Amino acid sequence: MKLLLMAASLRKGSFNKKLIDLACVLLREQKIEVDKADFSEFDMPLYDGDVNEKEGLPKGALAFMERMDATDGIIISSPEYNFSTPGTLKNLIDWISRGKPMPWTKKTLLLMSASPSLVGGNRGLWHTRVPLEACGAIVYPDMFSLASANTAFQEDGSLKDDDLQKRLKISLIEFVKFLEKLKH
Amino acid sequence: MKLLLMAASLRKGSFNKKLIDLACVLLREQKIEVDKADFSEFDMPLYDGDVNEKEGLPKGALAFMERMDATDGIIISSPEYNFSTPGTLKNLIDWISRGKPMPWTKKTLLLMSASPSLVGGNRGLWHTRVPLEACGAIVYPDMFSLASANTAFQEDGSLKDDDLQKRLKISLIEFVKFLEKLKH
Amino acid sequence: MKLLLMAASLRKGSFNKKLIDLACVLLREQKIEVDKADFSEFDMPLYDGDVNEKEGLPKGALAFMERMDATDGIIISSPEYNFSTPGTLKNLIDWISRGKPMPWTKKTLLLMSASPSLVGGNRGLWHTRVPLEACGAIVYPDMFSLASANTAFQEDGSLKDDDLQKRLKISLIEFVKFLEKLKH
Amino acid sequence: MKLLLMAASLRKGSFNKKLIDLACVLLREQKIEVDKADFSEFDMPLYDGDVNEKEGLPKGALAFMERMDATDGIIISSPEYNFSTPGTLKNLIDWISRGKPMPWTKKTLLLMSASPSLVGGNRGLWHTRVPLEACGAIVYPDMFSLASANTAFQEDGSLKDDDLQKRLKISLIEFVKFLEKLKH
Repeated sequence: MKLLLMAASLRKGSFNKKLIDLACVLLREQKIEVDKADFSEFDMPLYDGDVNEKEGLPKGALAFMERMDATDGIIISSPEYNFSTPGTLKNLIDWISRGKPMPWTKKTLLLMSASPSLVGGNRGLWHTRVPLEACGAIVYPDMFSLASANTAFQEDGSLKDDDLQKRLKISLIEFVKFLEKLKH
Repeated sequence: MKLLLMAASLRKGSFNKKLIDLACVLLREQKIEVDKADFSEFDMPLYDGDVNEKEGLPKGALAFMERMDATDGIIISSPEYNFSTPGTLKNLIDWISRGKPMPWTKKTLLLMSASPSLVGGNRGLWHTRVPLEACGAIVYPDMFSLASANTAFQEDGSLKDDDLQKRLKISLIEFVKFLEKLKH
Repeated sequence: MKLLLMAASLRKGSFNKKLIDLACVLLREQKIEVDKADFSEFDMPLYDGDVNEKEGLPKGALAFMERMDATDGIIISSPEYNFSTPGTLKNLIDWISRGKPMPWTKKTLLLMSASPSLVGGNRGLWHTRVPLEACGAIVYPDMFSLASANTAFQEDGSLKDDDLQKRLKISLIEFVKFLEKLKH
Repeated sequence: MKLLLMAASLRKGSFNKKLIDLACVLLREQKIEVDKADFSEFDMPLYDGDVNEKEGLPKGALAFMERMDATDGIIISSPEYNFSTPGTLKNLIDWISRGKPMPWTKKTLLLMSASPSLVGGNRGLWHTRVPLEACGAIVYPDMFSLASANTAFQEDGSLKDDDLQKRLKISLIEFVKFLEKLKH
């Protein structure tokens, strides 16, 4: 069992990166192999149908697909931009959706979010589900949204709130069980 | 009364560009001034919070805002990517949303779409409403979605189906009336 | 200027009813006439196309339409059920949508919500916009969601948090201005 | 392997009922046991939190839950009302969501739709996913939407379009495989 984890943020101090870091720690404790990716590794232009036709998918999209194909499941922690999916993440989803056969088909994802707001970015995740599911990906129903993310982390990277930390751990374990079932 | 019109597609042969061209013709017939913009005029990087903080908004976003502020309303015709907003258009919305005060507040938009599919891209428009409305823009409830767009146009740029052409014209006139009321 | 206000909840102790009560007080202070309706006044069966064809709209739907047609705008405060519109409210929207000509066309609404949760029911409102806008209603982009509604009210019905109370008042005044513009 | 199938329509001549009938035939061909339910078997009032507190769930909701719990998966074919979930179906989802422990958790569903329109009711299904997923149900990403449903069926109940009939069959078989994996 191996998972790809990525925060869909380019910002260095991103709370979503901190949440991904913590998820990696918790998964390794469960003996799950993790491949932690940085969004900046998958640089790609804004989608242009003409470029796609002439040159195919950009290197960044191909690199993400390769990493994705080498794992059993994907965890993306994404900020919410204007109550919806960041254009940056949607651009990645869009480019990859032009691969053939459809690269997202039956890929299984857990979505998370972290935000300084009291809502924790959850509204955005509901928008992010749609294009992924439209492309045939299986998006785990349970999603983890971390509110007040600017004050939620301890210095060691764990969450100050023990209950929240437990809930995150349970979400991750449940997702792994789900992946194991689908792997058969 | 002056409107900004743009197809949210970088592709040269975009059906959304053809729909925007037609809308411009129909609006000029109504003595409405139009500013037809090309999406490629607003080139900008993928949103990065650190870049935003250091350098402010990119030139492409500032250029769109200037054009937008010089008009009474905006018409965007957008393709649908994976049942949702193109990442490219969302990236434009996201960048502009970081201007202060919020540049989208009370901006009034009509959304359209064109697609070779039988649905005409309408599902995507419903996702595009959300971030715009979240930013305080007023999105006209009626939206015009052109299905089978690959066979819908005559050589002179009008629609083969007279009823559809009439419906488009009425949508545009109704939107202009709406703008006039809000202008008071 | 006259407004119809209703909480989309049948529960006696509904926080949405309290929010509607407060909105009525604030509107009357602005010399706006209000018609406060109770959801239970519009009792109607679950939508059945056969019943609709044989008997037309139920009395409850007709009663709501009459009240709606006698006002310049509508304010609905709705709970969120499972991150979406309550089936009860959607059933009202559905029945009314079968009137001819479409009764919702150009009706102008402000949506609000109140919930004990930290999100305040805001996710549900975004779902409620869609059928209303699909029916041609104009839904004001700004929406007011009251979080922690179980502890938010003073005994006199105002909000404990002065800033929130001011924001609510401004939302209401802005909505009334919007209605006045559209009335011309 | 046993499935519960239901059309979320009370109308006698419902196209969704025809689609459910056809799905039952195709599943039986695959030696899958089916329990075909009629929406009218689950009569229930509009949700009222006070009634819920005093009397618990209505008989109709309890009956649906019993049938649901006796199967490995659920197929619902739903009309689209105003681009969204019918209030009637949402009312069922809402009532059941008040059971403890949450009755929808890990229930696995396939959503279908049939409509005389060219879109086939697909927009509505995307709204129906949300409350189900919010309640912890697993909604299969692939959804089957039958457009032009008023002319789509042969007298024997199969689809006139062979390719569509095959696609429906494949959707059903793929869903059953998915259920089998999750059953382990």
